[in-house]
Amino acid sequence: MSTVFYGPLVTPTTGSLSSYLAIPNAALSVSRDTGTIQWIEEDVHPSALQDVMAKYGIVGEDLFLVELQTGEFLIPGFIDTHTHGPQVPNMGSGQEHELLDWLAKVTFPTEAKFKDVAFARRAYTSAVRRIIDNGTTTCCYYGSLHLEGTKVLADIVHNFGQRAFVGKCNMDRNSPDYYVEASSQDSVLHTLELITHIRSLAPSAGGSPSNALVQPILTPRFAISCTPELLTSLGGIAASDPSLTIQTHISENAAEIVFTKSLFPPSILPTPPNHHGPKPTETTYAGVYDAYGLLKSNTILAHAVHLEGSEVDLIKRRNAGISHCPTSNFNLRSGWAKVGALLDKGIKVGLGTDVSGGFSPSILTAVQHASIASKVVALSAPEHKHTQAHHHTAATTIPFANRHLPVSTLLYLATLGGAEVCNLQEKVGSLEVGKEFDALVVSVREDSGNPNLWGVDLDQELAGSGSETDKSELEGMLERFLFCGDDRNIRRVYVRGQLIGGKEFRRA
Amino acid sequence: MSTVFYGPLVTPTTGSLSSYLAIPNAALSVSRDTGTIQWIEEDVHPSALQDVMAKYGIVGEDLFLVELQTGEFLIPGFIDTHTHGPQVPNMGSGQEHELLDWLAKVTFPTEAKFKDVAFARRAYTSAVRRIIDNGTTTCCYYGSLHLEGTKVLADIVHNFGQRAFVGKCNMDRNSPDYYVEASSQDSVLHTLELITHIRSLAPSAGGSPSNALVQPILTPRFAISCTPELLTSLGGIAASDPSLTIQTHISENAAEIVFTKSLFPPSILPTPPNHHGPKPTETTYAGVYDAYGLLKSNTILAHAVHLEGSEVDLIKRRNAGISHCPTSNFNLRSGWAKVGALLDKGIKVGLGTDVSGGFSPSILTAVQHASIASKVVALSAPEHKHTQAHHHTAATTIPFANRHLPVSTLLYLATLGGAEVCNLQEKVGSLEVGKEFDALVVSVREDSGNPNLWGVDLDQELAGSGSETDKSELEGMLERFLFCGDDRNIRRVYVRGQLIGGKEFRRA
Repeated sequence: MSTVFYGPLVTPTTGSLSSYLAIPNAALSVSRDTGTIQWIEEDVHPSALQDVMAKYGIVGEDLFLVELQTGEFLIPGFIDTHTHGPQVPNMGSGQEHELLDWLAKVTFPTEAKFKDVAFARRAYTSAVRRIIDNGTTTCCYYGSLHLEGTKVLADIVHNFGQRAFVGKCNMDRNSPDYYVEASSQDSVLHTLELITHIRSLAPSAGGSPSNALVQPILTPRFAISCTPELLTSLGGIAASDPSLTIQTHISENAAEIVFTKSLFPPSILPTPPNHHGPKPTETTYAGVYDAYGLLKSNTILAHAVHLEGSEVDLIKRRNAGISHCPTSNFNLRSGWAKVGALLDKGIKVGLGTDVSGGFSPSILTAVQHASIASKVVALSAPEHKHTQAHHHTAATTIPFANRHLPVSTLLYLATLGGAEVCNLQEKVGSLEVGKEFDALVVSVREDSGNPNLWGVDLDQELAGSGSETDKSELEGMLERFLFCGDDRNIRRVYVRGQLIGGKEFRRA
Repeated sequence: MSTVFYGPLVTPTTGSLSSYLAIPNAALSVSRDTGTIQWIEEDVHPSALQDVMAKYGIVGEDLFLVELQTGEFLIPGFIDTHTHGPQVPNMGSGQEHELLDWLAKVTFPTEAKFKDVAFARRAYTSAVRRIIDNGTTTCCYYGSLHLEGTKVLADIVHNFGQRAFVGKCNMDRNSPDYYVEASSQDSVLHTLELITHIRSLAPSAGGSPSNALVQPILTPRFAISCTPELLTSLGGIAASDPSLTIQTHISENAAEIVFTKSLFPPSILPTPPNHHGPKPTETTYAGVYDAYGLLKSNTILAHAVHLEGSEVDLIKRRNAGISHCPTSNFNLRSGWAKVGALLDKGIKVGLGTDVSGGFSPSILTAVQHASIASKVVALSAPEHKHTQAHHHTAATTIPFANRHLPVSTLLYLATLGGAEVCNLQEKVGSLEVGKEFDALVVSVREDSGNPNLWGVDLDQELAGSGSETDKSELEGMLERFLFCGDDRNIRRVYVRGQLIGGKEFRRA
């Protein structure tokens, strides 16, 4: 049994950050059993569609055909590599603060409410629905510090069918009395209990726990909020369970960095696992995580705004990934990450909404702000003054550092880049044969009802042109969607072949 | 006959950029004849509402009462001080270019299509509807260079009942062959004909042409595209018709500035009207407009990203206004205007969407990007390195330069600041007795259907609290609307007391 999608398709491809595939007439088949992409045929003329399907033995009752209309296209689902579930009710609050004040005045009071499991259930149900309907098929969630509330978050994500990592915050110090864990032992016990709970959630038919859509993730909130004892224990868990993913914050704000270094002088830091050469004589933020065995190839580091050169090298050596959160970084006046330079180093980078440091749960907003951040980097670069009067043209061979990110790279960050950060690039992040079908049906038509996006069908009507879409029109549709689109332009959201959200899903 | 609105009200007030009024229980009366605000009463308890109305003699059939629900509030309509009507179909296209390339490759080809009057009618009808439904009650439109198409734009705006300035672009050189005026004489004749046409549009009942909602505006596109002869003629029109408003671009992009200075060496510039002291020996961008009598108290200058100090002083002396267009300035890599420093100088500043240099027709997006731009300015300021680790708190007495703009100032720029730029501050821009009722009914409720905004009714439901709104909650509602809202949160759009748009209007 297969579902065949027929219409335009846009996808990044592995290894290329500067180009993407835009196929005006694609046929793509998804197994209804496993949710994987079985085959993709390009340039299929409408008259040839039946023959193509017959070639693959798809006939009669085996077939469920989804034909896209003019102005619709398939795209991989968005991957949000950093957000906070219990902060969703705070979206759009507290933009006057920088990080540490914002945590104390805006964030912690709201997160503390999630001690109430009934409250958590209702709030998370609403929060996760919003995130899915914005096209996020994979999401890295920080819960609150509460075990029970975070179990509820995992349950809801599981029931909705989103792909996700769910962790409870570890935070046993430098937090308000009303919102701090009693001890590092408690923190560890609750963490292990959450991991057990999440792994017990029923995997989809025939799946194993390692193949489940919802996975646990170690979540030391940030170094400031964790005692050395707690970090040591979490490093031990990570060492004993190498498949376990880790998420934390790094180098977001100047005051945070100063505080971190003061808490972890070199004298108290353990020698990092896999460390060669003499022990570092100065603390770096990345070095703290590394010392406790928490900087690994399955570590997701949010922000990375003010990294020092040695940290960039260390992150590359450990093959950890960066979650770039431009909405938050602007909003909390943290600064802007040098994403282009990180990409040039070969470091994995994805996008994060960082709700509610960021005020939007949509990766589309993150794309727009990542574009702006890269333009701020370009305009701030020392050489800009000499070159800005000339005309730049994007070329695939030049480095990314100090240049604005083209549409192709923005698409990559929102999808396949995020998959790499989550070490899911073998499964999702692009529409390729053998991968699971985590995808969106996007509509840039007038009937999407979003007045901020000029429908391509209206363009065609005004021009009196036909409804055939060529490659350059499809590229224009993608750019229009990324810069003007919102949830109304996301008609369907699929995870592993299952329809789990989108405008049409909500209406049904 | 009066319409009385009862519910929360938010408005800036004249002279205060750092605070605004947030009144949880206001009653506001609008004359159904003139559209003006007759009276406003604060702190009206529900049980006292009938008495308040009786006090003003409003009883029985004279009354039309609009009671706002929990999560709704009144706010002045938004003022977009800079946008291009014929570029609306291009929203979200061409973000890889800087200004001069973008004009040649993206903008001029689209604007040229507006030679076809039937095309113009259909495209403008759709464009203006979008702009109104985003809450823009006053809009400064650049048309294309075409007389007939721009008449159509004015007709449509007039028929929809939006308050607006509409101008056709003057551009008789440095433009592509397919999109340039035949001569400066043609440009002037067409301009005068458009002015006559717009002034002939029927004013609302009992009004005079000077009180009409739609006004003509002189629109020399930018100095680059105008010959000295054309600028001289336009300056003459402005001198002979002092009420005529002027709009143009200034100092957007480095290459543009260099080109402008090369076109207007000091030797060819006339001595400016009202000029005291020796003639300037060096050209500045503002000085070019001044030399031709086009820099006046009713001139709207878009962008002002790279102003020199002497230009800032000149603009202040002439009392010209600035349209700050942050979405466009980021998108085309122009840079960021130093809005705080301009405000400290006492220069009038409003917001512009600058579609399609900006990719959104919503002033809400401009607000969000103005916030980001001000944070980029703050983070780039030399003193930031020394102060960022400390906690800033906003105070009303400190200067704006090099600081992020608080919510109060963002609200001001979007409303009353824009009115000042348009010299409409006596009529609109705030909700005050005697002004015309250009206003929005905003909803930050769940049933707005915007998943990116967490409804205050959901907050109250989760907290089990009542539906009374206090002042700090209302302030929170405003911030949430400005940062997370979109057209779905704009239930009704009123201009001069008439309902002309909004979500409810579209449904009706």
